[in-house]
Amino acid sequence: MSILVVGSVAFDSIATPSGRVENVLGGSATYFSLAASYFTDVRIVAVVGEDFGAEHEGVLKKRKIDTRGIEHAKGKTFRWGGQYLENLNEAKTDFTELNVFERFQPQIPSEYADTKFLFLGNIHPSLQAAVKLEMDGVRLTGGDTMNYWINDFRQELLETLKLMNVLLINDNEAKTLAGEPSLPRAARKVLAMGPQALVIKHGEYGATIFFREGAFGIGSHPFRAPALPIEEVRDPTGAGDSFAGGFMGYIAAQEQLSREVLKRALFYGGVMGSFAVERFGTERLQSLTREEIDSRFQIFRELTHLE
Amino acid sequence: MSILVVGSVAFDSIATPSGRVENVLGGSATYFSLAASYFTDVRIVAVVGEDFGAEHEGVLKKRKIDTRGIEHAKGKTFRWGGQYLENLNEAKTDFTELNVFERFQPQIPSEYADTKFLFLGNIHPSLQAAVKLEMDGVRLTGGDTMNYWINDFRQELLETLKLMNVLLINDNEAKTLAGEPSLPRAARKVLAMGPQALVIKHGEYGATIFFREGAFGIGSHPFRAPALPIEEVRDPTGAGDSFAGGFMGYIAAQEQLSREVLKRALFYGGVMGSFAVERFGTERLQSLTREEIDSRFQIFRELTHLE
Repeated sequence: MSILVVGSVAFDSIATPSGRVENVLGGSATYFSLAASYFTDVRIVAVVGEDFGAEHEGVLKKRKIDTRGIEHAKGKTFRWGGQYLENLNEAKTDFTELNVFERFQPQIPSEYADTKFLFLGNIHPSLQAAVKLEMDGVRLTGGDTMNYWINDFRQELLETLKLMNVLLINDNEAKTLAGEPSLPRAARKVLAMGPQALVIKHGEYGATIFFREGAFGIGSHPFRAPALPIEEVRDPTGAGDSFAGGFMGYIAAQEQLSREVLKRALFYGGVMGSFAVERFGTERLQSLTREEIDSRFQIFRELTHLE
Repeated sequence: MSILVVGSVAFDSIATPSGRVENVLGGSATYFSLAASYFTDVRIVAVVGEDFGAEHEGVLKKRKIDTRGIEHAKGKTFRWGGQYLENLNEAKTDFTELNVFERFQPQIPSEYADTKFLFLGNIHPSLQAAVKLEMDGVRLTGGDTMNYWINDFRQELLETLKLMNVLLINDNEAKTLAGEPSLPRAARKVLAMGPQALVIKHGEYGATIFFREGAFGIGSHPFRAPALPIEEVRDPTGAGDSFAGGFMGYIAAQEQLSREVLKRALFYGGVMGSFAVERFGTERLQSLTREEIDSRFQIFRELTHLE
């Protein structure tokens, strides 16, 4: 079934130890859409400026992503510049130009009304909530956030978390949101805020999914999908959004919504994140095959498989 | 079969967010011995001072550890004091008093000559090499090291690495040793220095074992054993040595030395490390049962098990 993502489309300028690129297509909704497009039909809601041309939209259309929800506004597209130092774990932002993204008010095309899966990318929690309330017929809503919203818009975020079935954040965000340095205890606290499941992304160490007691199955045992960088990490930008795209895209393509499906989805998330970082920007995500994806799924699975 | 460990015995003074203790029994050989004692017979070679009494030796003897290799020297036992801040990942050393450990020259009792498994704890690489050369009939030699030896005694360490079958270090040590920020590439470089297998410990994210092509089996696919802190982390001291004790102890207890054995050993390493951190010092490692250990092995195994 189709999935709708609302988030940012951007032009990124990125420097890493492997090189640098200027004004390449990026943004959370872009990475998410491309990653999810290998599993299911994707619909996108975002805003771009007059500098977003047919060649950029073509990147999405080539992957059959429905771009009718991309609003073309007067002005320039969101631009971000940043660099990664030797360890590649943290980006140092050089500049952020919000441009048309500053006044983004997500508009859901009427053709998207029957969408069954929703992903709320990393935007203002009140905008996330508004989208979710409009899409009240969805089967599952996933969402992302970041420390900026956690620290400065906590009340709005807490309201939005009640509307999400699955929250996907990284270790640091989980600890900040819960005010708790122990990951399992932080997870329990976040689950008490609303989501039925919490995915905590550990970068190169994979991700763990924590469940509320009884959510999507029996008990509350967490599950971990490891990851291992197979190829050189050239550019970590978009790894988390690509993870979310693989995770949600796989779920949206399944008949059932079981715990086993969520576990496999966690592996597919790690797979798509690991592809994303192999090239700059979205380059690697534009030209994958489902065979390559499933082959890496198998490698990640065997990585922890005891006989 | 029995395993011999050479390393430090110490009295530690530790402060963590959960509390503080003074002069509790610690040291790499102590943690290793206690963890390994749940799997096989353990023999220890270390040095202690006059402040090391029967009550301390009793902790080891109660776990049937052979303490004939503990040399009682004039002076005080090695003492270390340190504290862990909120994230618990890194210790800040308050003081290090080497005392009798400064002139440690490992003496292997003749009764230990038939030992088949050897673990070279984190001591001067030249001492590690001397022990290994004396124990030339062992089936498998594991070893540890740290950034101090990697940076300041590199030549001696490189000689010693040629004598080890399995090296166990953490992410940071692997990257420093290889001079390479990518973990898979660092692993390849370290394996080229001598060991047939390299275990890289990731703290709360588990550990990965990398193999030289054809070592202990076919191919060179790495394997990851995840870990998850089940209980509160009260004191991270000794987690790495307890990991090594579980890993090597399990291996020493098996008939065969196959890749499947090393994979399971990696899980048992994570299990023993996770127990060690639940209480201050060696408290938790003194009173475990094999049932508790196997039950946690099962939990860690299911943590990544897809149907």
